[in-house]
Amino acid sequence: MSTFSQIETVLLDDAYSAIVILDQTKLPGACEILHLHTQPEIHDAIYRLCVRGAPAIGITAGMAYYLAAKEHVTANPEITPDMLTAALKADKAYMASSRPTAVNLFWALDRMERVYLANREKDNAEILALLRTECEEIRAEDIRVCRAIGEYGLSLVKPGDGILTHCNAGRLAAAKYGTATAPIYLGHERGYNFHVFADEPRPLLQGACLTAYELHEAGVDVTLICDNMSSAVMKQGLVQAIFVGCDRVAANGDTANKIGTSVVACVARQYGVPLYICAPTATIDMNCPTGADIPIEERKPEEVTELWYETRMAPDGVKVYNPAFDVTDASLIAGIVTEYGIAYPPYKEAFEAIFARKAAGEAIIGEESAQ
Amino acid sequence: MSTFSQIETVLLDDAYSAIVILDQTKLPGACEILHLHTQPEIHDAIYRLCVRGAPAIGITAGMAYYLAAKEHVTANPEITPDMLTAALKADKAYMASSRPTAVNLFWALDRMERVYLANREKDNAEILALLRTECEEIRAEDIRVCRAIGEYGLSLVKPGDGILTHCNAGRLAAAKYGTATAPIYLGHERGYNFHVFADEPRPLLQGACLTAYELHEAGVDVTLICDNMSSAVMKQGLVQAIFVGCDRVAANGDTANKIGTSVVACVARQYGVPLYICAPTATIDMNCPTGADIPIEERKPEEVTELWYETRMAPDGVKVYNPAFDVTDASLIAGIVTEYGIAYPPYKEAFEAIFARKAAGEAIIGEESAQ
Repeated sequence: MSTFSQIETVLLDDAYSAIVILDQTKLPGACEILHLHTQPEIHDAIYRLCVRGAPAIGITAGMAYYLAAKEHVTANPEITPDMLTAALKADKAYMASSRPTAVNLFWALDRMERVYLANREKDNAEILALLRTECEEIRAEDIRVCRAIGEYGLSLVKPGDGILTHCNAGRLAAAKYGTATAPIYLGHERGYNFHVFADEPRPLLQGACLTAYELHEAGVDVTLICDNMSSAVMKQGLVQAIFVGCDRVAANGDTANKIGTSVVACVARQYGVPLYICAPTATIDMNCPTGADIPIEERKPEEVTELWYETRMAPDGVKVYNPAFDVTDASLIAGIVTEYGIAYPPYKEAFEAIFARKAAGEAIIGEESAQ
Repeated sequence: MSTFSQIETVLLDDAYSAIVILDQTKLPGACEILHLHTQPEIHDAIYRLCVRGAPAIGITAGMAYYLAAKEHVTANPEITPDMLTAALKADKAYMASSRPTAVNLFWALDRMERVYLANREKDNAEILALLRTECEEIRAEDIRVCRAIGEYGLSLVKPGDGILTHCNAGRLAAAKYGTATAPIYLGHERGYNFHVFADEPRPLLQGACLTAYELHEAGVDVTLICDNMSSAVMKQGLVQAIFVGCDRVAANGDTANKIGTSVVACVARQYGVPLYICAPTATIDMNCPTGADIPIEERKPEEVTELWYETRMAPDGVKVYNPAFDVTDASLIAGIVTEYGIAYPPYKEAFEAIFARKAAGEAIIGEESAQ
């Protein structure tokens, strides 16, 4: 068993043709690493949530595509471009079935396929080198984006501040830093001595199992609270800023994130604490005008009444409402932190300026040093 | 096994010299009634939370005092006043030790003792009759007070409304009606067709185990939600009023109640939903100027990290903050519903008027019909 600080969420071990992941289903009780060699092993790890979080799933899928190509070429060095194309098409469809609602999964597989198709007539060694570079680049990009978000986020707080976060938009959901945790980790590296409060949140407890775990392991001062304790904490003046991640940001700044984010936002408004959304530009959807256009997934009642528990914790037959996300109104958000800087209201105009810089190929903060 | 609707939270069965209670530790899985005959049985039932909720504990303690006197007199019809006084003093101290922080327990025992001491020279049959009347009156008073709160609360809502409540200030905490649930039960009797949302709330889940249970059993349309879903529900316009109980109300209207009540209040403010506190005048403490003067009990971390769960749900060694209550600022409260009517801001003046009416011995609403 390794210690958390020694290992990464997702790594490619090319020498042994494996993806090395931290098995998140074992947290917080045990820190176990898995070496995934075959496509079924990787598929199973995604399906069983051994690896989770949109960026981490995308990175894993990219590596899976590369390893599939490597396996075919190794097994049959004489494989023709048509044979390899057909085989990889099947592999891609198989891997895409591991989490059918994970957008990053398809995005990463499509990106790998584009590189392959553009180079399918080259020789096998060259194709593999290009695919390997591409999947490593997906991972490196995520690290650069999170680090840039961390730098901008860090500019919003000062040493000794109390920071509250909700759910896990952390290192465990990405390759490194995470999004909402990026300012915390960067500040920790620089001796900021933050006091972090991590919401559980119900019903899946990712804050307790994952965020509290990863921050505690990293040596950050972190206190676990239940979702209904945020007001007690803020009323005492213990929180100077809130950083949360997001699943989708609408063009007007309305933000869908883990259920309860908008509860935290309402409490923050009452006590004058700024709430910041940490959002890679990839999660800002300019085709989605407002939060009302974001569909909200409703999950099964048993997650609330039975999950984790030794016995059922609600009467048989009682109705349960279990939305997985909620939408925080843009008016409750103090700023949206992207890898191209911080967007302030009015968000639509701020996003347009950010996307113009991205389209122009502008380097993000720290991009040179990370490459 | 009885069905919930057939039984009461606490009843005196004088023919069999027993207190009959619903064993709340078995809820929501089973509806079991307990017949408590001896002082140790009653002590144990309070200690193990088989009966809980301030009013219900007070009622049980009053009945325990009566049964203790009956037992002594039955065992020794020749018992002298001095012997009985000494015996009851010991019984009272024993029962008071069952839940040392429950104010209602001491209040009820003191009230019974005052009746006994004022009549100790009378004959045994007369003493027992007076004590029996007194403990039944404690129960009847609670029902009248809750019913009056229900009537006033009901005037604040209309048929078909959505109502949210937090924790259990329900029938299971009292003799009948409860406080926060009183408007709901009265409305249900009158065909109001409320749609009730019950918060869990973490970590003790009294909303899931008790409120959802008792409302569901009573045929009320109730939906269980996690504490972090109140914003999602209110944003959709599904809640027209919030009724919650209270542990203590300060003279300025600041209200201590189960942790998370002030979170609900902040969310309600954002969406323009009125929050009402259902408060018997006994819980309004005019000697406590503001919420800052109310001490908040902090409970052990294991309630958050281990209770209910098959395995520990947070990393070893992580800090946990687990306050049992929070204080809702008076500015977030639309009204405080007492058995003498609804107090509106400024609360101090409103409370003084209510206490003046109470001191004058004014009958509360429905008092005649209930007696």
